Amino acid sequence: MKTPQHPNSQFPELARLVTLIDGVYAVALTLLVLDLKLPQNTDLAAALRQMLPGFLVYLITFASIAGYWMIHHGTFRHIAHGDGRLVFLSLLNLLFVTLFPLSASIVGGHPLEPLATACLSANSLLYCTTSWATWSYAAANRHLLAQKADYRRLQQAERMMLLVAVGLALAIPLAFVNVYLTYAIWILYTPVVGLWLRARRRPSA
Amino acid sequence: MKTPQHPNSQFPELARLVTLIDGVYAVALTLLVLDLKLPQNTDLAAALRQMLPGFLVYLITFASIAGYWMIHHGTFRHIAHGDGRLVFLSLLNLLFVTLFPLSASIVGGHPLEPLATACLSANSLLYCTTSWATWSYAAANRHLLAQKADYRRLQQAERMMLLVAVGLALAIPLAFVNVYLTYAIWILYTPVVGLWLRARRRPSA
Amino acid sequence: MKTPQHPNSQFPELARLVTLIDGVYAVALTLLVLDLKLPQNTDLAAALRQMLPGFLVYLITFASIAGYWMIHHGTFRHIAHGDGRLVFLSLLNLLFVTLFPLSASIVGGHPLEPLATACLSANSLLYCTTSWATWSYAAANRHLLAQKADYRRLQQAERMMLLVAVGLALAIPLAFVNVYLTYAIWILYTPVVGLWLRARRRPSA
Amino acid sequence: MKTPQHPNSQFPELARLVTLIDGVYAVALTLLVLDLKLPQNTDLAAALRQMLPGFLVYLITFASIAGYWMIHHGTFRHIAHGDGRLVFLSLLNLLFVTLFPLSASIVGGHPLEPLATACLSANSLLYCTTSWATWSYAAANRHLLAQKADYRRLQQAERMMLLVAVGLALAIPLAFVNVYLTYAIWILYTPVVGLWLRARRRPSA
Repeated sequence: MKTPQHPNSQFPELARLVTLIDGVYAVALTLLVLDLKLPQNTDLAAALRQMLPGFLVYLITFASIAGYWMIHHGTFRHIAHGDGRLVFLSLLNLLFVTLFPLSASIVGGHPLEPLATACLSANSLLYCTTSWATWSYAAANRHLLAQKADYRRLQQAERMMLLVAVGLALAIPLAFVNVYLTYAIWILYTPVVGLWLRARRRPSA
Repeated sequence: MKTPQHPNSQFPELARLVTLIDGVYAVALTLLVLDLKLPQNTDLAAALRQMLPGFLVYLITFASIAGYWMIHHGTFRHIAHGDGRLVFLSLLNLLFVTLFPLSASIVGGHPLEPLATACLSANSLLYCTTSWATWSYAAANRHLLAQKADYRRLQQAERMMLLVAVGLALAIPLAFVNVYLTYAIWILYTPVVGLWLRARRRPSA
Repeated sequence: MKTPQHPNSQFPELARLVTLIDGVYAVALTLLVLDLKLPQNTDLAAALRQMLPGFLVYLITFASIAGYWMIHHGTFRHIAHGDGRLVFLSLLNLLFVTLFPLSASIVGGHPLEPLATACLSANSLLYCTTSWATWSYAAANRHLLAQKADYRRLQQAERMMLLVAVGLALAIPLAFVNVYLTYAIWILYTPVVGLWLRARRRPSA
Repeated sequence: MKTPQHPNSQFPELARLVTLIDGVYAVALTLLVLDLKLPQNTDLAAALRQMLPGFLVYLITFASIAGYWMIHHGTFRHIAHGDGRLVFLSLLNLLFVTLFPLSASIVGGHPLEPLATACLSANSLLYCTTSWATWSYAAANRHLLAQKADYRRLQQAERMMLLVAVGLALAIPLAFVNVYLTYAIWILYTPVVGLWLRARRRPSA
């Protein structure tokens, strides 16, 4: 994370940005659980059963945030310098990380309502779009990249974010056809895209 | 962030202070969302509509904290050493970061009451004042600065904080004339000040 | 935490993973307390007395998380490089850290119900199992280890996690015999395993 | 924070411990505000007035935690190596940091009840006692100290913690005489002790 000072940049090093980002991801991952509260007006076994849909939403959201963090981690290390625009895009991206606990809470309370699932899909969609913008901006400004930056990795992260965004954009109207289609996209689509891109990358390496 | 040991200082390096500061900003940015709770006694579409004013306040507060963090990040890196007074001023400044979730919650619950908006304006005003005091103190104690510190950047941050503070001080009485004037100041004034100072700086660079 | 770049790895350094992990532990340790709320419909002395079982559960959970963190800290430093699978296992492991506030809250509300204690036992059991998987994976992939890695430490952490997992697996059915047996395992078993392994290690050192 | 490897220690470096500690302080400082909720069943001006006692308790607790963090920061940097016991004492110390939001909440709800103030005094007292134990342990195990450690600083921190602990121990029974005596100790005693020790240190420097 230590980078040589870049004289023309206002944010010559990114260590603090990374600390803030990791802090927000850590808090968001941990706050998700605050939405899961045991119902009080019933016996424990029934209360636990009532919590199941919310718990499933919790698992989906945790997996999404954790997966997004993995992509961020694997990509951002190829960026060595910042400028105002990169920091702005990163903070805009963080906005949609902090919204996940709210979106998850809306879906957890109304797991079968298309409108509720649309909130979480839109949240993820906006996260992916701003991620894509961040990687595109960095890729187009090579003086921001690390000396040994793997340029293909940035392009791959861009492509990944676009593909996931397309899936999430489809999940919004599909929920009004059948809400389980949205769940299928959330649970299956993103890992499949990730694994497919990973498989494609290997031969060229 | 690594600095040579300064023998007369009790806080020769600032890494831990920066970690604490970034931690508090990260938690504050993420806690804001806990105030947004879906109303239960209505259908989902109406409940989402009822959340809109609170959501707007959320966006304004997130943008404020994120913007203040950007200024802190761009300025604090010119300070290399600490002393008791600098750490004290930084912690006082953090107090007003931790209060943002409360002020935002007061405005979110009463978005059109001048007294509520005055709470958030006063919170921002006190943040800016203590920020200004921090930058002034560092600028007046050059042995605290980094070797290649950009002195003008500190002066610019001081001026920025004073100008924003003046706007926020005006926002408090103006809310009692028309509460939307306060919203106009929150949404328009700070970015305009920031962009204007940035534009002014460029020619002199 | 600084490691030489490992060319074939997608996560050549682990600093950010460690930051995320420590952030999640820090937030989880601090969020636990949010479940302790003073009952309002009684005088203060009675309210404090009513909080006692929840407070005991708080202490047990804090001690568990803190103890798990100590083991993680003492073990993970022997790992120098990451790959996708190690990061995946670490994030899966973190899932069960973020669930502790929920499990503790379930037990705090129903301290004498076997089903409630089974939730916290299962949570700890899944934490230990994924920890064990992490240490096993690292031990089986020596190119991930630090140059001067103490291989026995990894094996010891594996064994520790397996032994604790066995105890927790027994705690689940035993709670239905007598719920205090579960408390005995929580409070006594883990420290005894830890101290016993520590004592065994010394002669061989 | 970078330290040469100490072969006999299980925790040769303390960077992760410091990250965890700073994370817990940051979260605790920010969570305090969650206890301040605007009363709903009254007009805004009256609701704000009702919040005042809780707000004062918030300020006192924030100042306490921030002050304790300053002492920790100024002292812990003289410790370079860890062992199991130092880490254990540090985590025990952290337990009492995480309890501050609860104690503050009890006092905020019952600001004039001696029993409530006793909870916060006891929390601070236990924090100071475990801090004192940490500094004493490090001072008695010089191989844990940094090469250029200022030994007097550790002794001063020990003395500070003992003196504050004595004041807090007196605050518990004095609250049952007159609860405002406890507030006087909280607000006046600790800063006076701190400034007095600081003044005494200077001539000897």
